[in-house]
Amino acid sequence: MTEPIPQPAAESAMKSAAKPATKPPVHTEMRYFPDTAGELTVGGQPVSRLAARVGSTPFYAYDRQAMVARVAELRAALPAALRISYAMKANPMPAVVQHMAGLVDGLDVASAGELMVALDAGMGPDHISFAGPGKSDAELKRAVAAGILVNVESFRELPLLRAASAELGLPARVAVRVNPDFDLKSSGMKMGGGPKQFGVDAEEVPRLLQAIGEAGLAFEGFHIYWGSQNLNPAAVVEAQQKSFELAVRLAAHAPSPVRHLNLGGGFGIPYFPGDKHLELASIGANLGELIERARTELPQATLSIELGRYLVGESGVYVCRVLDRKVSRGHTYLVTDGGMHHHLAASGNFGQVIRKNYPVRLAKPTPTGVEPSELEPVSVVGPLCTPLDLLGDRCRLQHAEPGDLVVVFQSGAYGPSASPQRFLGHPEVKEVLV
Amino acid sequence: MTEPIPQPAAESAMKSAAKPATKPPVHTEMRYFPDTAGELTVGGQPVSRLAARVGSTPFYAYDRQAMVARVAELRAALPAALRISYAMKANPMPAVVQHMAGLVDGLDVASAGELMVALDAGMGPDHISFAGPGKSDAELKRAVAAGILVNVESFRELPLLRAASAELGLPARVAVRVNPDFDLKSSGMKMGGGPKQFGVDAEEVPRLLQAIGEAGLAFEGFHIYWGSQNLNPAAVVEAQQKSFELAVRLAAHAPSPVRHLNLGGGFGIPYFPGDKHLELASIGANLGELIERARTELPQATLSIELGRYLVGESGVYVCRVLDRKVSRGHTYLVTDGGMHHHLAASGNFGQVIRKNYPVRLAKPTPTGVEPSELEPVSVVGPLCTPLDLLGDRCRLQHAEPGDLVVVFQSGAYGPSASPQRFLGHPEVKEVLV
Repeated sequence: MTEPIPQPAAESAMKSAAKPATKPPVHTEMRYFPDTAGELTVGGQPVSRLAARVGSTPFYAYDRQAMVARVAELRAALPAALRISYAMKANPMPAVVQHMAGLVDGLDVASAGELMVALDAGMGPDHISFAGPGKSDAELKRAVAAGILVNVESFRELPLLRAASAELGLPARVAVRVNPDFDLKSSGMKMGGGPKQFGVDAEEVPRLLQAIGEAGLAFEGFHIYWGSQNLNPAAVVEAQQKSFELAVRLAAHAPSPVRHLNLGGGFGIPYFPGDKHLELASIGANLGELIERARTELPQATLSIELGRYLVGESGVYVCRVLDRKVSRGHTYLVTDGGMHHHLAASGNFGQVIRKNYPVRLAKPTPTGVEPSELEPVSVVGPLCTPLDLLGDRCRLQHAEPGDLVVVFQSGAYGPSASPQRFLGHPEVKEVLV
Repeated sequence: MTEPIPQPAAESAMKSAAKPATKPPVHTEMRYFPDTAGELTVGGQPVSRLAARVGSTPFYAYDRQAMVARVAELRAALPAALRISYAMKANPMPAVVQHMAGLVDGLDVASAGELMVALDAGMGPDHISFAGPGKSDAELKRAVAAGILVNVESFRELPLLRAASAELGLPARVAVRVNPDFDLKSSGMKMGGGPKQFGVDAEEVPRLLQAIGEAGLAFEGFHIYWGSQNLNPAAVVEAQQKSFELAVRLAAHAPSPVRHLNLGGGFGIPYFPGDKHLELASIGANLGELIERARTELPQATLSIELGRYLVGESGVYVCRVLDRKVSRGHTYLVTDGGMHHHLAASGNFGQVIRKNYPVRLAKPTPTGVEPSELEPVSVVGPLCTPLDLLGDRCRLQHAEPGDLVVVFQSGAYGPSASPQRFLGHPEVKEVLV
């Protein structure tokens, strides 16, 4: 079990060194939330006004225009012919999915529950795909009935899809999710290469393709997902190149031409001190070359990528209110009404081995010209009876008092749906799309 | 981000060594779920029958009689005069709270939401206490209105409690939650000593007691919570001794005699390979001595402890069904319909720095006389598109096929309420009390 142990000695050492030789890494600048009228704004509205509109804290606020800008930036950096899908697992709020459906070329769903939201958002079934290593029998049937593309991840799915096709009189539309035969050495969460529960091992795919042909399913292409949350453009380029070449090799075994090639996602966003925004230039250039190669090597294929957190993660903030300012043995705690039950990832309990702080600040502006080291070192905690309930560990904030609003950035993805909201019986978090 | 990397080399090395010099640590034996009629039972019912009764998998099943036995064992080992409270945050299922309310002497709640369930369970307000570092203004008022004992954790709470008392015409019943001035070196999650958001630093308590007296609140005692999930009886004994002595020292500053002394919880249960059941004998002997000392040192006080997971954690299992048996590059995955969205703790994302396996087995019986090393090494994963969705990493199970039921033990505490149930839009987990 983790335990945050404040280190007043280290703090005071930092404070006394006016100009430290090497500055500790800091969070990169946040793009979408300017201070106007003396306060942080989301979608042009001061956070305190949003809090009044929502009626209570804590809440998540997502910015429509930030999502529009994000997709536009991405389209400007990537080839026009590349299709961009939104992996709605990142933020399944129906209003967000509806908004994103108008900005992207497709939606990727991870369950029948998400499929319902995607269809309600008005996305046509031609542009919805469904991936997941453990699709239930009922989910497979619902997918066939909806007419969406199923990314097959196991031989097990074929007889179920064939039976659903026969019963419904609709040929199941399928792509093959491939577990690549290459491995990436770089950072991020790896989801392909070596043994995996995801997809079908590349070397088994020819056999699967033959079985798909024999089952009379409508083969449409490949989905190759190699990882997520990667901030190294060279790693993304390498993975996309290798994925393309793998798809070309496997296409030779396909029962019909490849029409869709989904090169996966993997684009990361900067969460922690020292993280930088992913540079898109080399990724865009490489995708341009792959699209050019596809004209001859996969002539009927449309290339796509599938992004979740990259599209919405930076567009959202989590807002909570300081309930208490408490000094315990020289260390200051801001006790807020929000915490890990609403934002598990920011608490460091969502796959992080070493806990690091998300970018956190107060809604009221930080005075200009003030160095982070001149601000007060505080821990931002929640109302739960556990040391795990930590939103900011010894982060430096402007002086805060009860009533002040605390903002956690990079909170547009994997927020409410990825958090244990019923933990300790507190009210559910609100969400607002501005 | 974590990533489970199967290690086939290590596996085969273990397999080839017929009698390894040192056996790897194993899970301790589970107490409450015997195999009868060829299958694991919960509350006397085969798990497959329970699955049929619930109507779907996954589900949690909690055993009433196991809870009865657990409380009885505990009462037999501890002094009769000691009061035992159930910290309902561990398992807030209303039926469980109702059942526990008939077995223990009190309930501890951590929010107004839990308070509602506690009152509905029929526990009298005299036997309900409320702790939490970030109680809202509304929660404090609701606590006063209900007539329960509020464990004050901050000077901030006093004016709010006084105002609620005046408005409601009821004197707020208060105890002081103390952040101890001692620190425990041992294992478990520390929740006291050093700087903490919990309670009021011991050295500040005399000032708080004076303020409580001046505010005219009804002072009733102390709550000293030093940690949780401790498996070392010597550490528990030391903490309870020091807590008692701290309470005696602080009582000299109290506005009225101490009537309740809550010595906290901290009793752990064995989750991981090598963990042993907590030995109660020395703890019981020490508590007997403290109760004897209390006759002279705190003559009006009742001593209590407050346990959550210790009372219910071993009484519950999580049951899911194998959807697919998938071999990827020599490693076998059992893909189930359950996973981290229902059981975050078993996936290793609930405060664990190093992920270890909960005890996992199939509902069908393990043949007798078979060594764990002769069983098949498999990874038990869920349906989610993330490598974090892992219930058993290279654990050894009897050969499993789709349809088989997988049982995760030690799942009676911090299950559904502590899990991100909406993650990826799958259905909520069911719960059944047998």
